[in-house]
Formats: sequence, C-alpha cells, structure tokens
Amino acid sequence: MIQGIGASTGVAIGKAFVLPNWEWDLPEQKIDVGDLAREFERLYEGIRTSKVEIEQMKDDLREVVGPEESFIFDAHLAILDDPVFMNEIQGIIQRQYKAAEVAVKEAIDHFVTMFDLLDDEYMKERALDIKDVGNRLLKHLLGAPEITLPADTQPFILIAKELSPSQLAHLNPSHVLGIATLAGSMTSHSSIMARALGVPLVVGIESKLEEPIQTGDMLIIDGGLGIVHIEPEQSLVDYYTGKQILQREKKQQLKGIINFKPVTQDGKEMELSANISSLKELDVALSSGANGVGLFRTEFLYMDRSRLPREEEQFEVYRNVAEKLGQKPLIIRTLDIGGDKQLDYFELPEEDNPFLGYRAIRICLDKTDLFKTQLRAILRAGHYGNVKIMYPLISSVEEVRAANGLLQACKDELRAEGVPYAEDMKAGIMIELPAAVLIADMLAEEVDFFSIGTNDLIQFTLAVDRMNEQISHLYEPYHPSVLRMIKLTVEAAKRQGIHVGVCGEMAGDIKALPIWLALDVDELSMSSHSLLPVKERLLSLRQQESRDLFERLMRCKTSAEIHEIVKLKTADEQQTEAYPDMFRSS
Amino acid sequence: MIQGIGASTGVAIGKAFVLPNWEWDLPEQKIDVGDLAREFERLYEGIRTSKVEIEQMKDDLREVVGPEESFIFDAHLAILDDPVFMNEIQGIIQRQYKAAEVAVKEAIDHFVTMFDLLDDEYMKERALDIKDVGNRLLKHLLGAPEITLPADTQPFILIAKELSPSQLAHLNPSHVLGIATLAGSMTSHSSIMARALGVPLVVGIESKLEEPIQTGDMLIIDGGLGIVHIEPEQSLVDYYTGKQILQREKKQQLKGIINFKPVTQDGKEMELSANISSLKELDVALSSGANGVGLFRTEFLYMDRSRLPREEEQFEVYRNVAEKLGQKPLIIRTLDIGGDKQLDYFELPEEDNPFLGYRAIRICLDKTDLFKTQLRAILRAGHYGNVKIMYPLISSVEEVRAANGLLQACKDELRAEGVPYAEDMKAGIMIELPAAVLIADMLAEEVDFFSIGTNDLIQFTLAVDRMNEQISHLYEPYHPSVLRMIKLTVEAAKRQGIHVGVCGEMAGDIKALPIWLALDVDELSMSSHSLLPVKERLLSLRQQESRDLFERLMRCKTSAEIHEIVKLKTADEQQTEAYPDMFRSS
Repeated sequence: MIQGIGASTGVAIGKAFVLPNWEWDLPEQKIDVGDLAREFERLYEGIRTSKVEIEQMKDDLREVVGPEESFIFDAHLAILDDPVFMNEIQGIIQRQYKAAEVAVKEAIDHFVTMFDLLDDEYMKERALDIKDVGNRLLKHLLGAPEITLPADTQPFILIAKELSPSQLAHLNPSHVLGIATLAGSMTSHSSIMARALGVPLVVGIESKLEEPIQTGDMLIIDGGLGIVHIEPEQSLVDYYTGKQILQREKKQQLKGIINFKPVTQDGKEMELSANISSLKELDVALSSGANGVGLFRTEFLYMDRSRLPREEEQFEVYRNVAEKLGQKPLIIRTLDIGGDKQLDYFELPEEDNPFLGYRAIRICLDKTDLFKTQLRAILRAGHYGNVKIMYPLISSVEEVRAANGLLQACKDELRAEGVPYAEDMKAGIMIELPAAVLIADMLAEEVDFFSIGTNDLIQFTLAVDRMNEQISHLYEPYHPSVLRMIKLTVEAAKRQGIHVGVCGEMAGDIKALPIWLALDVDELSMSSHSLLPVKERLLSLRQQESRDLFERLMRCKTSAEIHEIVKLKTADEQQTEAYPDMFRSS
Repeated sequence: MIQGIGASTGVAIGKAFVLPNWEWDLPEQKIDVGDLAREFERLYEGIRTSKVEIEQMKDDLREVVGPEESFIFDAHLAILDDPVFMNEIQGIIQRQYKAAEVAVKEAIDHFVTMFDLLDDEYMKERALDIKDVGNRLLKHLLGAPEITLPADTQPFILIAKELSPSQLAHLNPSHVLGIATLAGSMTSHSSIMARALGVPLVVGIESKLEEPIQTGDMLIIDGGLGIVHIEPEQSLVDYYTGKQILQREKKQQLKGIINFKPVTQDGKEMELSANISSLKELDVALSSGANGVGLFRTEFLYMDRSRLPREEEQFEVYRNVAEKLGQKPLIIRTLDIGGDKQLDYFELPEEDNPFLGYRAIRICLDKTDLFKTQLRAILRAGHYGNVKIMYPLISSVEEVRAANGLLQACKDELRAEGVPYAEDMKAGIMIELPAAVLIADMLAEEVDFFSIGTNDLIQFTLAVDRMNEQISHLYEPYHPSVLRMIKLTVEAAKRQGIHVGVCGEMAGDIKALPIWLALDVDELSMSSHSLLPVKERLLSLRQQESRDLFERLMRCKTSAEIHEIVKLKTADEQQTEAYPDMFRSS
C-alpha cells in the first residue's frame, strides 16, 4: 500500500500499464558551417508542425472538458514563441555547431534544471510544460512516432513517471480506469485535467515506492485517500469492489430526489447552488438539481493562457452560462488571482506569505483597467440572465465603495455606448476575512448580499494554511471561534435584511447543515457532487431541532465537544461523505 | 537623495569613508602531490587561528552589546566546523592539486553562488556569513593584514558594499557616525548589531545609486526614513542639524519625567513596561523608567548559535534579568520561532505561508522536550524575582490546557528534584489571533492574564503581511475591525477580572493612548524608546475624555474617519513620534 497525494477522486481497480519513458537517439557529430541554414530551417519546420499539432489537441480537448481547461495548451504555444527559449536553442546551433535536435534537448535540460533548482511548485510546473513542448519538438526533428497506449486491451490503470497534459489529452478515457504518477502535484495542469475528465489520479508516489510497478501488476487506486494498493489481497479487492457498487447504488438512489424541493420537515426552504468554474461543470450542476450557481470562479478564464482575456471573450463565456441557467441565479465572482493562483503573462511579485498578500480585489482595485474589462463583461452578460456580481477578499467599507464606484462608471460607459447591460445588477461580497466579520453590520449597509467563504475565513481566523501538512490538523472548521464568526455574519445580514449564503467547503459538509438551518441562512453553494447528499439530509431535518443543537454548540469550549454533537448518528448518514472541493480557496 | 531601507534609526551628518573591497592575490600554479600534506596542515592552522580570532571578537562584543547579539559569531564558528564546507575545500586541494587559499576561495564562491541562487533572504544571509568567515580564513592563509579604518581622522560615515558582522565588530563607535551599505536587509546580522550599537544604518541603496559615493563626500544618513543625502544643500544640513538638536533637547526634557508616576489627570494609573530581548536592553528600559518588562522575547537566546540553549544557560539569563528587576514584574514569553524567525540547527519545513504555519506554541506543543527545557528554566528563574510566563500564538482552550499541563509536569519534576522554583507562577497568553479574540471569554477562564499582540492580530484580521511592500498600505491599526477586536478582548478580561496588557507596536503609539485609557487596560508594554513619550502624553490626558473619544471611534465606518479623530492636535504632540519596533512581530 503506497500513500501518495490524491489528485482526483474515485476508485479504480485493474491491471497496470507502465508508460515507457521517452528515449531519444541523438546524433553525435557536429554540423558543418555550411549546414547552419539547413539546421535552422529544420528547427523552424519542427516548430511549425508542433504548433499545428498543439492547436489540434486543444480543439479536440475543448470538446471533452470545455474551453477553460483547454487553455492549458496556450501556455505550450507560448513556449514555442518564447524568445528566451528560442535564443537558447539557436545559440547552441550557431555557436557550438550542434544539430537542431541536440540543441533542443540541451535547451530543455538547461531550463528544466534551472526551474527545478528554484524550490517552487509553480516553476516546477513550468519546467514540466517546457519538457512536454520540447519533447514534441524533438519528436518531429527525429521523425519519431507518437507513443501510443494499448487500445485493444482491457481497460487499464496507467502508471507514468509524470504525465504531461499532451499525454493526458491523447488518452481514451474509456480505456483508462485510473492513473498513478511517480511525481506530480495537486495543482499541476495534468491534475486539473484529470479532475475535469473524472479519472481517479494519485500523484507523488515515487518516494514511497520500494520497487517499480510492472505492467500487468494488479492495482487499486483510491483517488480520494491518495492510496495505491499493489497486488492487493482478495479481501481488499472485494472491499473496493463493494465500495464501487455501493457508491454507484447510492448515486443512483440519490437521483430520485433531484427534483425534490430542498425543504426541511418543518418547511424551511434552502437554496442549494453549485460552485463552478466552467461551462462544462454547469452541466453536472444542473443534472444534480442545482438551484443556480452561487459561485462562478472566473480566474480560470485568466489562467493558462498567454494574455488577458478580452471583454468580448469574457462576455461570451458569462453570457453562455447565464443563458443556460435561464432565470436561475448566477453569482459571478470577480477575479481572485494571487495567493496560490498565478498568471503566466501577468507578473505578480514573489511574496513571503502570498495568502496575506497582493490578491483578488486588492489587485483589481490597483489595476483598474483589468478590473473594468471584467466588470463590463459581467454587466453585459447580466442582460441575458439573472446575474449578480460578487467581490472577493473584502476587508473594509472603503474597498466596497471603490469597487461599486468602478461598477457605476462601467454602467455609465455602457449606457453612453448604447450597449445593453443590467442596470440593476445586485452586487455582493465574500465574507472571508476576520475584518469583514467584525464589521459585517457596516458592510451589510453597502451591499446586496453576503457569501461566507469558510475556507479562507477559517485559515485567517486560526492563522493556519490548510495546505501546510505540518499544521493542517489545526485547520478546524468546527472551532468555537469559527462558529461565532459565522453567527456574527449571518445575524448582521439578517438585521439588515440582505441575502446571505455560504460558498466555502463547509456548505457541502452535511455535518454542518444544522448550523445553517439554525441561523436561517438563505443559500448553500457547493461542489456539484455534494448537492444531492446535502439535499437528502436537508429533507430529514427540522429547523427547530437544529436551533436546539446550535445552542448546545454555542456552549462548547473545544472542537472536540463540537464534533461530538455534530457527528452523524446513523450509518446511512455516515456513508454519504462530503466531497472535498478541488480548489484551494473557495 | 537616495531612498534605501532604514535598518537602524537616527541621523548622522558627516563625510564619507568608502571601505575598500577585499582583493586577494591568489597563487596560480598547482601544488605537487608531495605537498598535499603541507597544504592540509596550512588549512588546519588557518582554521585554528580564525577560530581563536572569532572567539576573541565574540568576547569583545559581548561587553558592548550583551550576550545575545554576540551569538552571531557562534554561527561563524559553526561554519568552520561544517563538514560540507570543509569537504568542499579539502576536495579541491586533494583532487585538483590547488593551493589551500585557492580551494577556500573557490569553495566560498561555490556556496555563495548557490545560496544566492535560492531566492530567499535567509539563505542570502548565510551566504554573507560564509563569505565573512571564508575571507577571514583567506586572510590567514595569505598572511594579509586586517583592513583597518582611519582612527586618527574626524568621525566619518562608513560606506561599504555590504558589511559583515566581523567588520562591524571592529568598528570604533566613536569614530563611526553612521553607515550606508549598497546591499543588505533589515534582518541581517549586521543590521541587528547596528541597532544594538545605536549606529544609524541605511541598507540596499545600490539600485538607486547613479554614481558611486567617494571618500570625502558630504553625507546625511536618515536611518528612520532610510534616506541617504549626497552632497546636500546647506539648508538640508541645517534642517537635519536642527532636528538632531531638537531630538537631543526633547530627549533631555523627557528625562525630567522619568520618575513621575504614570497617571492621568483624573487619576487612572497605567503600568508602562518595556519589550526587551536581552539583558543589555533591560538597562535602557530601566533608565527610561519602565515599570517592568511586559515582554521578554526569548527567541534571541535560540538564534544565531549552533545548538539549542541548555536549561542552565537559559536559567542564567532569565535569573539575571529577574534579579535585576527585583520586585518589578517580568513576563517571559516562551519560544516564538517559525514565521520569519529561523534557527540554524533546528530545521523548520519550507512553507508557502510561514505566518500561517508551524510556529511558536505549535512547535512547542509538538517538540515537548524543547518546550519543557524552557519551562523548567523559567520556573527556576521565578524563584529569584517576580516572573510570569506567557504563551504566544494561542488559538484554542485546548492549547492553553496542554501548555499548562506541561508547566505542571515541570513543577512536579522540579519539586521531586528539590530544585527551587516558583510554585505559584502566573501564566498568561498573547491574544494575537482572531480566533483567540472570538473566544476571549473562554480563554480568560483558563489563564491569569492577557497581552494583546497587535502586530500579528492586525495582520491576520486584515490578511495583510505588513512586510509586503505591495500591500503594506493595507496594514491599518486604526481599522474599525481592529478596534472592535481589541474591545472584545479587553472586555472579556475585565469581566473575568484578569490583568490585561498590550505589547504590540500600538502600545507605543501615542495616538492610540486614549483607546487604552477608555477600555481601562492595565498595562502597555513597548520599545524602551517609546516609554517617555507615552508617559508624557499620559500625564496630560483624562480617562473620561478618552471614553468619549472612544465612543466616537466606535461609530466610524472607515479608517480615515478614525485617523481624523485620533490624530495629534498640538505641534508639541506631533513632534514626539512613535519609534517603530525593530522586530517584525511583537
């Protein structure tokens, strides 16, 4: 049993297929001075062919996973246009008289080594992209065949050192039950794609592996727990097979309540909405009975591409989502980059504590051109559906007023231009900083709604980065101070009579449901996977009993006491686990 | 006018002396195989001589700046014992037949380049240490003379590329008015030493410098603002000369109130205590009329040395401070490393967000042996004075109970061993996390006192790292949410009847004084420089008027409104600026 990092949930049971490493047979002799021009021509031809191929992959992938994830390949195209990378290759040919393929190989090695030296996850990912693109270029220069996976065999579990987005794009999902890679991280492009494709994936197993996995080995991949079982005992296979069946049955059974109204036994109705970041995810949300979208993350429109998305591009995406939702509400959150989310083409400063840094609304109020482009696109999309706008990381009344001032300026511009837009668009804020909770009464006077971002709120309240393994046990949603923060926020919203929702991971945790009922929260927005399990529990609860339970919680001095009260009592309840949200912040 | 980084406050006016760079004349020819043994002997002899010299510097410096800062040289001694550094040097001699001095030079260059590549302030500092020690070793191998400063001239302002602790230790403070270095950082060993010596220092001016400063240039160093004026106009010289005189006069005038009781016009007495981190700083505190020590930072006992301090070593330091204070209270804060404070010999994990990481009480409750050593030393020191213990970064009732449980275990051990200790030592906590504020009522039942650490509390409440230049303008002590956090904390303490103090930078900001008076805080603990300015204002205020002012503050919705109310009205008040605390966290 190997403990790795779970990068995409789900269970896979099957035989291993180990992906061979790319090995290149490079020419050893130097080239003649007279052949320099020919080598450059070969290089440029290779680049052209590679670009065509990448564009093709991008188009194919867009069909499968939607436009957002396919932008990964824009980063690849950008590398082939990158002057630093290209100068390095050209320099090696010109000054050292080496063949184009040798120059490409040495340039890849140079940059990969350099990026790997910087002990930084983000740069390591860029190294992986360069390797992926470089290998494609090498393949063309050497006339080598594409490495293909066995297509006519039984479906298998793929094992690779690391998997590039290109390789993943070529996989036939019906042949690949699951994947385990020796290297890799939760946040790599490949992991994002695996989640979009719904393929179970465990990464980073190398250090735990005593001997290499062989093609044909029997494996179980548990993407939720991040575990790979090698040649498991029959009892374990039975357990996981049973689990697969149960999960499938439970899923089937939950389908029965898709069209049920989300209401408690004593009549409290709760809006159950979805957190999404692409049009594709909207399909899953709607087929899981979502009331609307409580959080549309827009940063994925900005990531993994070579330049800022233009107003038209953004408008198209927002309008598509809005139209598809019809009269169902769509809350679009403005750009939330920084922290752990970086853009290739927009240089953010190196920060000692990026979570406490230049992020989200702070960037938007600083780079107002960038912000206004998005505000205009959202206002215009509002004309085609029930769109609301939401600002993240708000800490003060001043920030709300500044953002709303820019929103008003955009309305004035659009009106003057005669472009249709939503004049009365509701504007709300994320409550995710302790500062915002403490002045929630003042903020409530300035906005139309609150959405509590429990993930960041818990992190700042407790001063715990939950991705930091050394202290992740201190990340405690059921901490007395967190419950009080939540209570303060909801009560301030209620007193002011504004709509209040929750869009952090706690919203999808069925154990927390009585808390939201007791406080009379209006909306819970969560990963689509959690919608039906939460609705199932909602149907069985009573608001009055939840109030009694919450009073007991308020008297608890420790998290242990709180857990004792909120824990699920029946086996049936326990079976329905909350699905972790894939993204780091809400 | 060059804007650098102010690393040590104060104004200096005088002529520049530019420190020449060390240039080495290294032998070019390789050595014979037969001479290998001789080269090794030369190397070892050089190391021995260097060690003797460093020990001597350390002893000399201890007299001047106290034992804590002199530990900087323990890090240097450790380098000369470091097997990786030594193996590198020996390897170059043995395998490449190079002379010992060449091997040392190449090893220095190798490690310095490597450490500089890692884009990390801490490693850059280590690179500087290696260069300093390596140059000392080189000097002995080459028989070169120590570079000395002009001793018989007028006092001067020293200009250097960067200044090593060794160089600084050799300075005669009466000859050096101030220092400016091209490279350097606030947190370097040299900056720490300059502050301890009271020499104005501006670092990091290289990028702003259009042409090099020459020996003999007229300069003004403003260590508070981080500015170097080159060949200033006479009016500027007059301004700064006037400022120096005014500061000296103000300082002289304030001495008149040293023995005044710290009490308002209407009779509210406030304990005014000092934040210190060494015995030497205690002298300054006492001569500034401190009521006691409200925060003794112990991490400096652990930093810049090669191993953990033993119980006896710690006990000696704590007892010295306690005895010197007599019946005046001494609050010793337990180890607060992590975040931006690292130990050479205690490997802390690389963290994406160290402020939200493995720090302070979290380390102590994890490494209980390390913690118990300190608890025992503090308990024993308690026998010799009025000592209280304080735990940092507390987020929950569970943590307080765990820490107090270990404290009780240490008492039981000491009793069984027959070692004298303070049985009834009071134990308190820092309130510096939003979580602690929200459950302050529960925490107050578990401890003897609170001390509000405003620096961290503001950082977490607003999610702003104040050392991050891009967003430091968002670090706002006078934020409505911060005032509410403070109010909640003090009220919880008062309801429970426990002592409550403030030990962050706000405690020493005279603008904030009415806030503490209105809330009836018991103690303010601050940098010794702020004690007299704060007392001066205290003597002029009335508690009842402060209460009225605070009620107006509580109605403010923005920081701008709050600033408008707390700002100082008279020129005399404005002249007395708060001194920034030198250390990053409280």
